[in-house]
Amino acid sequence: MYFKEVHRWAAEADRLLPELRHRRVAPVALVRPEADSAAWQGWKTVQAGELTEAVGAELPCSCEFTFDFGEYCVGHLELEFEFTRPVDAPFCFRAKFAETPFELASDFASYHGTLGRGWLQEQEFVYDDPSGVIRLPRRYAFRYLKFRVEAGSDAYRFRLKNICCDTTTSADWSKLPPPAPSCDGLDREIDRIGMATLAACMQECFEDGPKRDRRLWLGDLRLQALANYPSFGNLDLVKRCLLLFAAATGDEGRVPGCLYLKHPLPAAGNLLYDYQVLYGDMLLDYLRASGDREFVRDLWPVAKRQCELGFEEFEDDRLVEREDRWIFIDWQENLEKECAAHGVMIYALERTFELARELGIEAEVLEYPVVAERLRRMAVELWMDRESGFFRCGPDGQISWASQLWMALAGAVPRDQAADLLLRVIAEPAATGPGGPFLHNQMVLALEQFGRHEAARVLTRRYWGKMVEFGADTFWEVFVPSEPLRSPYRDPMINSHCHAWSTPVFNFRQSSGVNTPVSGRR
Amino acid sequence: MYFKEVHRWAAEADRLLPELRHRRVAPVALVRPEADSAAWQGWKTVQAGELTEAVGAELPCSCEFTFDFGEYCVGHLELEFEFTRPVDAPFCFRAKFAETPFELASDFASYHGTLGRGWLQEQEFVYDDPSGVIRLPRRYAFRYLKFRVEAGSDAYRFRLKNICCDTTTSADWSKLPPPAPSCDGLDREIDRIGMATLAACMQECFEDGPKRDRRLWLGDLRLQALANYPSFGNLDLVKRCLLLFAAATGDEGRVPGCLYLKHPLPAAGNLLYDYQVLYGDMLLDYLRASGDREFVRDLWPVAKRQCELGFEEFEDDRLVEREDRWIFIDWQENLEKECAAHGVMIYALERTFELARELGIEAEVLEYPVVAERLRRMAVELWMDRESGFFRCGPDGQISWASQLWMALAGAVPRDQAADLLLRVIAEPAATGPGGPFLHNQMVLALEQFGRHEAARVLTRRYWGKMVEFGADTFWEVFVPSEPLRSPYRDPMINSHCHAWSTPVFNFRQSSGVNTPVSGRR
Repeated sequence: MYFKEVHRWAAEADRLLPELRHRRVAPVALVRPEADSAAWQGWKTVQAGELTEAVGAELPCSCEFTFDFGEYCVGHLELEFEFTRPVDAPFCFRAKFAETPFELASDFASYHGTLGRGWLQEQEFVYDDPSGVIRLPRRYAFRYLKFRVEAGSDAYRFRLKNICCDTTTSADWSKLPPPAPSCDGLDREIDRIGMATLAACMQECFEDGPKRDRRLWLGDLRLQALANYPSFGNLDLVKRCLLLFAAATGDEGRVPGCLYLKHPLPAAGNLLYDYQVLYGDMLLDYLRASGDREFVRDLWPVAKRQCELGFEEFEDDRLVEREDRWIFIDWQENLEKECAAHGVMIYALERTFELARELGIEAEVLEYPVVAERLRRMAVELWMDRESGFFRCGPDGQISWASQLWMALAGAVPRDQAADLLLRVIAEPAATGPGGPFLHNQMVLALEQFGRHEAARVLTRRYWGKMVEFGADTFWEVFVPSEPLRSPYRDPMINSHCHAWSTPVFNFRQSSGVNTPVSGRR
Repeated sequence: MYFKEVHRWAAEADRLLPELRHRRVAPVALVRPEADSAAWQGWKTVQAGELTEAVGAELPCSCEFTFDFGEYCVGHLELEFEFTRPVDAPFCFRAKFAETPFELASDFASYHGTLGRGWLQEQEFVYDDPSGVIRLPRRYAFRYLKFRVEAGSDAYRFRLKNICCDTTTSADWSKLPPPAPSCDGLDREIDRIGMATLAACMQECFEDGPKRDRRLWLGDLRLQALANYPSFGNLDLVKRCLLLFAAATGDEGRVPGCLYLKHPLPAAGNLLYDYQVLYGDMLLDYLRASGDREFVRDLWPVAKRQCELGFEEFEDDRLVEREDRWIFIDWQENLEKECAAHGVMIYALERTFELARELGIEAEVLEYPVVAERLRRMAVELWMDRESGFFRCGPDGQISWASQLWMALAGAVPRDQAADLLLRVIAEPAATGPGGPFLHNQMVLALEQFGRHEAARVLTRRYWGKMVEFGADTFWEVFVPSEPLRSPYRDPMINSHCHAWSTPVFNFRQSSGVNTPVSGRR
């Protein structure tokens, strides 16, 4: 092990395992999916009978209902049946859970995506003894439940007495401050749905999506922590996740891109360069939010190590090309990433140095600002196009949101020109835009960083407002308004519709740009 | 409650809950079903590759194997996988368990029988954490397992390290005496398969079938107890079952036809006239096998009450016709049952009187022999055909095994003519024969009763020997050699292929008719 403290860190993370808060949610309506070309992804739901036809009434031995729970639920389904005649055979039913009308209408048997089909939330259940409360063993994430009893014998006589989802979260809704008084209706809607998204992802750790992946990703954690500080303010959950990553650093001392908490190979997965080097940035955010210098000092070597490992990827101040390194930056296809990744490294060095200064140990990393400055000069030399005033990357001189925002954050342009660079690229039709919510959030953070609170609000309303308009209950992992069936996994039914990185980081709890979010403070 | 002792009886039954014996059975081969018109029900299995292709080897992310466990198993399947890369999605697989090649080849989706489809042993399983030993929650009864991994993602790398069935029984194989030295090969095969059948049905109670029904039937218990006394000799399990029935007698004091031990309405089900009245007969068998007079004396009132209730069904010494009364006698269709049911009542009165005499309390039921004699005279008058020497029942004067054997047991013919009556009806081509193993066993008992041990052996070899020939691992609930796809439930895939009442009651542990089985002693 690179760090001898890993076992202690793991034990501390265990001690911070949150007690989940439970709330039971019952269905509010019976519905059915209906094709509608005007609806997002071509499907909506319409009412299909009264709830009392399914709950409380005597049911035929084989029957099917689709329940609408009225809100996004993460938890365990509980069912209680009443049998008025002996149960002549094991009781079997089939349950399909869906986040959206499109998923509800999709036939999972036709699934052809690249991810394991185990994420598709459909299963048969057989109970020899169906008396009492039946609690399904897996946790599900859904708004809709298609439920079919497959008894196939008319010896049964039964009613469905109760059906509900025992939802869980480690977010405490009672601690949520209201949005700023200046927020209008759309702001409040975006905030409401954003908080629902964040809370649904707050379980025993910050998960990326409660339906799919259900794991702790470093890049998602960074955004979740920033959204969490001014809202639910659950500092312990962030602390636990920072510890989990520190405990998973292994022989090289490298923070993994994600952690599988409940899997046979729990160590780590998916090394992500641009996630890893920002560990120090996240520690600095945590220090400012919590004031817990002792804790952050303890993890400081982890932050420093990530910068060292990150810089090992450079030769002559440029990132070495390597097949086996994953640089994420954004889902956008054909994105030229070198410039942005270069900017991430500079930003990481600056932020990690800042962290050292706040801890009073900047002597350890005095070279960081020097290296950062050298990298900045290289960036300007390589990618700055004096004519257009944009950073252009790749053989075709691509102008992208990603390059501009990371160059701005890296300080590759003077501070008083950074905001202008961001606003110009947003307005530039030829620019390669963001591939989804993740990079939208990075842009919001960058705008805030340079004091453009109102522009960040406008961008948030423009992008997340569209999801509101399309009826989102929680914000979607993948969202390109012009491509409703886009999927990075070749089949949209496996997309996650409640996703960590889609929680807007725009802070609706501050009324102006005076207090920029934690990440933006210098 | 008719009997104030019911709670005490229930508590005593609970105390006798057996500790099950476990034995792990691993598959012995990979097979596939193959159509073969010469095979029973048109299907056999043939080898399909080597077991090491499925167990121990690295598997593709989606794969299917059919395991042959080489013997009939009742228990919980246990699987252990080894994952050499992170498990990227919940692990899902589908398992189908089958007792026979026909069942293995059948498509359960086409099931159209009258019983609940919950008995068909097929289910999908999804595990968020597939590490460690996976023990399927339901108990299954099978020889074959079709197993399909449905990962649908090539992120997985895994092996199936171990697969076995943790089988259970409350039979103690170490207590089984060997068959009599005079038994030849076929006798030993029938005995071996019979004992496997009996042991598989001996769980927390005597079950009728470990795949389907899994409940305690009074009529099956009678045969199981008789087969058990000279073999496994598990007296406590019989005692427990007698107590369970006594505890379920309810407000009328009526013993139910069967008990659902693990169902929401556990009380009782299916009142069966011809099962119920033989409760005293079963107590008498138990008394003779165990010598436990105190216990039998305690349950005596239950036996007596069954005769009273049984006789309430008579008017002018004939069974009143009633729509809502179920008289079983046999599965044989178009069987005229009045004569046999009449005989069952006489036999029940005689045996219950005998029980009273052994307990020294015959004064309580002095009228039973008198009533029995009156019913016998009525039987002879109604059904005895002097010309053919057979009892003929129903509008068409049906000659059946059922009528003859119950009249013989009832003493409606002189004792020295009874065996002749039985042998004649077995030889009579025009007679309505038995519909399955249940009535075959009744005939074996009747032959033994009248000292015809060798004839009982011949009948056993003729009928059960056919099942041996057809490759039975355990004896089948439904077996009419000329009708391989016969099913009382309109679909043979739901038939049980290991069934209580199909355990041969012929006692292979005695070498001659000198010691007739318990039930036959007078």
